[in-house]
Amino acid sequence: MNQSSEVVVYRLGPSCDLGDVEEGAIYLGKVQGFANFGTFVMLSDRVKGLVHKTNVRTEHAERDEILVRVKAIRPNGNIDLEEVILPSYEVKSVTRTVTVTRLADLGNRIGRTVTVMGEIAQIKQTSGPTIFTVVDESGSENAAAFVEAGVRAYPEVELGSLVQLEGQVMQRNNQLQIEVRAISVLTGDEAAEVTERIEQALDARAEPEEIPLMVESEVMTELRPEMRRIAKAIRRAIFTSQPIVLRHHADADGICSAVAIEQAVVSLIKQSGGDFDADYFLFKRAPSKAPFYEIEDITRDLDFALKDNIRYGQKMPLILLTDNGSTEEDEPALKLAKVFGLEVLVVDHHHPDAVIDQYLIGHVNPYHAGGDFGITAGMLGTEIARLINPSVESLIRHLPAIAGVGDRSEAPERQRYLDLIKEQYSEDDCKAMALALDYEQFWLRFNDGRELIKEILDLTGKNERHTEFVRLLVEGANAAIEDQMSATMPHVREQTLSNGANLFLLDVEIHAHKFTFPPPGKTSGEVHDRLCKQHAGEPVVTIGFGPDFAVLRSKGVLMNIPRMVRELRTEISGGGISGGGHLVVGSIKFVEGMRDQVLEGLIAKIAEAEVE
Amino acid sequence: MNQSSEVVVYRLGPSCDLGDVEEGAIYLGKVQGFANFGTFVMLSDRVKGLVHKTNVRTEHAERDEILVRVKAIRPNGNIDLEEVILPSYEVKSVTRTVTVTRLADLGNRIGRTVTVMGEIAQIKQTSGPTIFTVVDESGSENAAAFVEAGVRAYPEVELGSLVQLEGQVMQRNNQLQIEVRAISVLTGDEAAEVTERIEQALDARAEPEEIPLMVESEVMTELRPEMRRIAKAIRRAIFTSQPIVLRHHADADGICSAVAIEQAVVSLIKQSGGDFDADYFLFKRAPSKAPFYEIEDITRDLDFALKDNIRYGQKMPLILLTDNGSTEEDEPALKLAKVFGLEVLVVDHHHPDAVIDQYLIGHVNPYHAGGDFGITAGMLGTEIARLINPSVESLIRHLPAIAGVGDRSEAPERQRYLDLIKEQYSEDDCKAMALALDYEQFWLRFNDGRELIKEILDLTGKNERHTEFVRLLVEGANAAIEDQMSATMPHVREQTLSNGANLFLLDVEIHAHKFTFPPPGKTSGEVHDRLCKQHAGEPVVTIGFGPDFAVLRSKGVLMNIPRMVRELRTEISGGGISGGGHLVVGSIKFVEGMRDQVLEGLIAKIAEAEVE
Amino acid sequence: MNQSSEVVVYRLGPSCDLGDVEEGAIYLGKVQGFANFGTFVMLSDRVKGLVHKTNVRTEHAERDEILVRVKAIRPNGNIDLEEVILPSYEVKSVTRTVTVTRLADLGNRIGRTVTVMGEIAQIKQTSGPTIFTVVDESGSENAAAFVEAGVRAYPEVELGSLVQLEGQVMQRNNQLQIEVRAISVLTGDEAAEVTERIEQALDARAEPEEIPLMVESEVMTELRPEMRRIAKAIRRAIFTSQPIVLRHHADADGICSAVAIEQAVVSLIKQSGGDFDADYFLFKRAPSKAPFYEIEDITRDLDFALKDNIRYGQKMPLILLTDNGSTEEDEPALKLAKVFGLEVLVVDHHHPDAVIDQYLIGHVNPYHAGGDFGITAGMLGTEIARLINPSVESLIRHLPAIAGVGDRSEAPERQRYLDLIKEQYSEDDCKAMALALDYEQFWLRFNDGRELIKEILDLTGKNERHTEFVRLLVEGANAAIEDQMSATMPHVREQTLSNGANLFLLDVEIHAHKFTFPPPGKTSGEVHDRLCKQHAGEPVVTIGFGPDFAVLRSKGVLMNIPRMVRELRTEISGGGISGGGHLVVGSIKFVEGMRDQVLEGLIAKIAEAEVE
Repeated sequence: MNQSSEVVVYRLGPSCDLGDVEEGAIYLGKVQGFANFGTFVMLSDRVKGLVHKTNVRTEHAERDEILVRVKAIRPNGNIDLEEVILPSYEVKSVTRTVTVTRLADLGNRIGRTVTVMGEIAQIKQTSGPTIFTVVDESGSENAAAFVEAGVRAYPEVELGSLVQLEGQVMQRNNQLQIEVRAISVLTGDEAAEVTERIEQALDARAEPEEIPLMVESEVMTELRPEMRRIAKAIRRAIFTSQPIVLRHHADADGICSAVAIEQAVVSLIKQSGGDFDADYFLFKRAPSKAPFYEIEDITRDLDFALKDNIRYGQKMPLILLTDNGSTEEDEPALKLAKVFGLEVLVVDHHHPDAVIDQYLIGHVNPYHAGGDFGITAGMLGTEIARLINPSVESLIRHLPAIAGVGDRSEAPERQRYLDLIKEQYSEDDCKAMALALDYEQFWLRFNDGRELIKEILDLTGKNERHTEFVRLLVEGANAAIEDQMSATMPHVREQTLSNGANLFLLDVEIHAHKFTFPPPGKTSGEVHDRLCKQHAGEPVVTIGFGPDFAVLRSKGVLMNIPRMVRELRTEISGGGISGGGHLVVGSIKFVEGMRDQVLEGLIAKIAEAEVE
Repeated sequence: MNQSSEVVVYRLGPSCDLGDVEEGAIYLGKVQGFANFGTFVMLSDRVKGLVHKTNVRTEHAERDEILVRVKAIRPNGNIDLEEVILPSYEVKSVTRTVTVTRLADLGNRIGRTVTVMGEIAQIKQTSGPTIFTVVDESGSENAAAFVEAGVRAYPEVELGSLVQLEGQVMQRNNQLQIEVRAISVLTGDEAAEVTERIEQALDARAEPEEIPLMVESEVMTELRPEMRRIAKAIRRAIFTSQPIVLRHHADADGICSAVAIEQAVVSLIKQSGGDFDADYFLFKRAPSKAPFYEIEDITRDLDFALKDNIRYGQKMPLILLTDNGSTEEDEPALKLAKVFGLEVLVVDHHHPDAVIDQYLIGHVNPYHAGGDFGITAGMLGTEIARLINPSVESLIRHLPAIAGVGDRSEAPERQRYLDLIKEQYSEDDCKAMALALDYEQFWLRFNDGRELIKEILDLTGKNERHTEFVRLLVEGANAAIEDQMSATMPHVREQTLSNGANLFLLDVEIHAHKFTFPPPGKTSGEVHDRLCKQHAGEPVVTIGFGPDFAVLRSKGVLMNIPRMVRELRTEISGGGISGGGHLVVGSIKFVEGMRDQVLEGLIAKIAEAEVE
Repeated sequence: MNQSSEVVVYRLGPSCDLGDVEEGAIYLGKVQGFANFGTFVMLSDRVKGLVHKTNVRTEHAERDEILVRVKAIRPNGNIDLEEVILPSYEVKSVTRTVTVTRLADLGNRIGRTVTVMGEIAQIKQTSGPTIFTVVDESGSENAAAFVEAGVRAYPEVELGSLVQLEGQVMQRNNQLQIEVRAISVLTGDEAAEVTERIEQALDARAEPEEIPLMVESEVMTELRPEMRRIAKAIRRAIFTSQPIVLRHHADADGICSAVAIEQAVVSLIKQSGGDFDADYFLFKRAPSKAPFYEIEDITRDLDFALKDNIRYGQKMPLILLTDNGSTEEDEPALKLAKVFGLEVLVVDHHHPDAVIDQYLIGHVNPYHAGGDFGITAGMLGTEIARLINPSVESLIRHLPAIAGVGDRSEAPERQRYLDLIKEQYSEDDCKAMALALDYEQFWLRFNDGRELIKEILDLTGKNERHTEFVRLLVEGANAAIEDQMSATMPHVREQTLSNGANLFLLDVEIHAHKFTFPPPGKTSGEVHDRLCKQHAGEPVVTIGFGPDFAVLRSKGVLMNIPRMVRELRTEISGGGISGGGHLVVGSIKFVEGMRDQVLEGLIAKIAEAEVE
């Protein structure tokens, strides 16, 4: 058997079986257990032999490695071993040539026993079996290993382990699952090779299809490479069973962007197999309270992510921020995300601060391509959703138009998206849906309201119900707005500034209904719109203020709100001033006791601004 | 075999088996799968044959229908087929005469295989089998179909499907379950017939027993038909595994009404079989924050209902509102409920607005029968609970008395309900329980506190613990009230109005403890009660006001609060006024900045009211 | 067979089987059911016979006891009975001698069928089997009884039942479980004997090891017996599967005390076997909003405990309060706990009120041993954690030092705990972790943030990530504090009191950022620290007030805040005054409308205090 100068000792690979064992040969075995008549020794994960007590040469404990010679293989498969002691020897590995089946090919192997190789992407203990999610270069599947109700099978297999798994392929109702017979953890070269193979294949598989934009757009054409990058990162997360947390601004535009991606992701999760409930626990959509990623939000996301990781064996999530995430206000949260190695993607149309990009693995923003906020998050999100999963396009193609009218986009793309769907929805329909979203989200507080929101956006196929629902929400929203205006408008104070601007002041704390729709920001906006109509052609600034904040809207006055805020912060000591926003629409916060000084200072600065 | 001019082709019904197959006959079969030696064809859901490749005549794909002749039925049951091609033929259906067992009779068929027919009322995917809840004319049972851990069995069977189901009846510990062997979806006439049979039987089964009221009551006697209607609708929901959401006013009366019904429903759910945890997921009791069904509440209820429907295969719920639901303030929420086809029932004793009834399938209200709010929701709810499930009467018979004293009913029924239970509980006991409910609910916020509330109401059989618990809560409540009064009473401002009424004004924002028990409304009530005692026999009006609201209580002054509110709304521009309530007890809301004007206007109107 | 004067009737014990039945003998049997050919009668839980209808002598219903003579035992094991009627007889019990295996010895009986005796500590219905947790004198194990998916097995076995259980021992991956073959409930003497045996053994097993304190401490040495009592009560809860609810003050000291115990408990739960997820559902850590056990907290805890008890078959929990629980403010909650028989333990370093001890089964407090608040809850908690489970010591030994610097302890123990860990963490490291805890807990609101908090405390073995995370949190906290100070400091009003003290007044409502970090109390503390530095060596009092509260800090002024509060309460009618705290650090609450009077009165009293 062995012609070399050293005695050869064989180490059987994990999948070797009885057919790989030769009588007379010496093997490196592992002590498995003891009986009063001898010692049981594993020659491989599947082959066990007995060293009768008369053939034991050393003292040894469970899991010790010892050398054994195969004395005989009996007809019933039992193996008689004897322990041997060698001063020196050469180890040769015996690898069984197993035919590894790609997970994507399991459908052709139903009822048969297969061997697969892949990475463990999730380990879910149920009250019955342990469910391992395995990912290889071609796809992912669940494998169920049962030892006992509620008991974790194969505790040595961890999240991220590279494994060789043998089991029977079961299928019913288009769902496949492997019933595990054995799992062994790969190490060293074998593991590296599998990793490499999976990575390459995943990279190719995650690559989005080459599809054109839905409308003509110079800005978005330039953004396409980055849009593809983001779509690819999301596809990769889905293919590797990584959870996705989508945080978005809680207004119509933010909702449209997020829901478009939600449809693409949920549908792709379902298409990619996996657990029956995977589209719920692998994808979470969460409206944000603030217009940026708050410390409180990242704290909550990290709290849940770490608990899910420790308790339920889930991977740490991929974070996607839409209509949110690109300003310096997001930095503290993104720093925390980075500490925990979270990958973050941003799809936003707020003016980006460059400092943010160091925390992101992808960032689509019209300002990167000479565009502005007129290319809304809902437009970007929907285009990305199509790259993630082209099959949802027909479902979501009206979302950019709703986002465009909801965010009052003045970009040419707005009309193009409206034209795209004009057979189905008029501009008024889109406005109605946008208002309905705002109103419903107010009552949903910060719940996602998954099915209700789909109903508003006509994504459930129940068009009549959708129409009636939207009609009712619009009716409710408009009644509430009218009610607020009738309480508020009589209290608006007017003054003409030295630059000729009409300034309107409104105390939204004491002259508006609180804790109801419309909230202070939207109330101020509505008042401003009405005042602009009343003073058509004239410069108008509206300040809606509460005890410690003011909301600014302007028309025809060339203010620079961020600069005014910065200046007031320096000028007014103890004002506790912060804030910002766009040039002519924004807000400012201060401490309550300094409100009069802050408003006075603010008005003085507005009076200095040039009017159109 | 076939004497007609056309060749006859047989279509076997889903439950046909080998005994229905005749050698030589031609059948319409469905291609099931392929082997290298031929094609497998299903003749019915249970009968499969093989067309050897030499007998295949056409190209076909899975699920294609093809014509096959039975060449031979082998002794082992294998069927040899050959494909045939016929230019024209007549199809005859072969229905197997199956003996359908009624679900109520399963208890006599334990261990045997039965066929049942019914409607699918719930589909619950567990990490093990799929659990179908089937309802027929006699009852409902669960049927477990297992294909693979966590995989949905029979995806073609949907919520509401009419099915024929075959399986083995299992029983242990008084719970029955069918282990599914086969399910087929019924269509056409067969489905219509089953629906009709189930509907008729359900209608009869849901009919409440004829039992008299617990006490004499002219008003409630007149309301009995409507009470029966409501009880019937609830019984029907239980028998068909429809979830029930019970929303109620969060005070003693509201809790009593809701808990009485909760006991009846939970107990009937358990008696009706179903899943071991069904009394939790098929019934939810939720105290409401507002004294009406708010937009926020319906939004939340719809959000959950739609998610449960989509994710867990539950029916849309039946909504029951108690001590709540009958005024125009409820209309916006009810409109939304209607869009989603939700059935709503109301049991209320607030003055009803007729506009509401178009949204309801049942509405019990004393005002419909010449009564008033003295017939409290707790009285009505308990009487309805008895109709739902007479077996709980002994448990809940003291609840109307507690509700009566809690709501300060002055109807004669109050004393009758007290008399009914005087052996067990004194009037003081009832007052103590009512106060304990208010106090405990305050700390429970808007959680149901199911077991704690049962403890207060002595429904757990632990009388000593109940007594001590109530004693402690009453002690806590009274201490808190005393504390509040000592802070508040010194600040009450008095003035005598031109009509001779004593007016008392109290700022509950700055002269009372906030965010604790007693809250502003109850604080004002307590102050009013003390002032009435101090000014016995004189007309007294108490106004407890905060920044943007005022609570009114009066005695001996013939005010009409709803009218005063309507008038002020018109008279005070920019007041943001709303509100209402009963004639002499109510509240008014306004914008903070207009408080002085509103209070002034209000006081002027009170001064015009007639005093007794 | 029977030589006595009376006829002997045998009563077979629950575990008797066919081998205990003798032909010809008379047995007390229980009617089990009927067939048309006769009556089935159970002679023991496992032995059934048939009384043919020709041998029935009386009318009887299910579960009736009747006398039967064994006519014959057939070869297949069937038993033919005949009913007999005896005017008088003597009953003799036949107990089968079963070898009872101790749960701790199950590991040696794997694969074999054993009989165990113990108390049922939990009954968990899964969607598969019913899981009974059994506790005996040596340990606890789960036993799975399956009748049918989701159906409760052995409904006669209740929480707390003493049972004899037979089943097969299964083991895989170091987890044992018994597959139940039969369970019978023990009664009378047999039950009493088992109870006694279990109690004695548990008592011994729960006794903590004798280990010395980590540092020298006179006070803690005196507290050791009580610390052991508390550790023992917690160990006992773990060994008997009783849930533990740990409520703690939400600051660095409170978190350290609670997390130290959490590590000990969670680890001991895992070491003690039990369900795979037991460390989550048997242990809950909850930060408290108030610095005492509020009515709202106990209400919530009771609500959950009772629901878990009724719905999931869990025992009522053991309550542990740390850095909390020892003052009269806790009394109302503790009274409620007592009504429900909850056992409560307190580990606190606030000045204890003796009235509290009647509600506690253990109370460690430095004031009981001549110490003061310088011995922080974190020090006490960590020492107790070591007694609960010595194996976690190396993990948690730095927690007392963090607690000490976090709570600004001036006790000598502070330095000793710092010295203990100086190789690993500097004092600055500890300060950083303490500040990071405060900051992170603010954003976690009142969630436990289990994994995030462990990360801050370097308990996860990821030292680099920990370091970076703490650095970032400290950076965030300090930036927020600076921001708050720059808004606040310019508004501080100064005045010199007649006793020479410098009084500083600060309106934290209108001159500080609200709803953010640092909150009002910490803001006042920071201001005070800065003012003390500016006025080093002088007496300083800082009052940070809001609309209805004031926070007091002082240095060098011998105030007695609790006394001042008591006096003001009497002197100012309608002030709604309450509050307290330590002598020189505390807070006072009042109604908003009386703020000026209260502050004036307070300042007058401070002016009377002696200065150092």
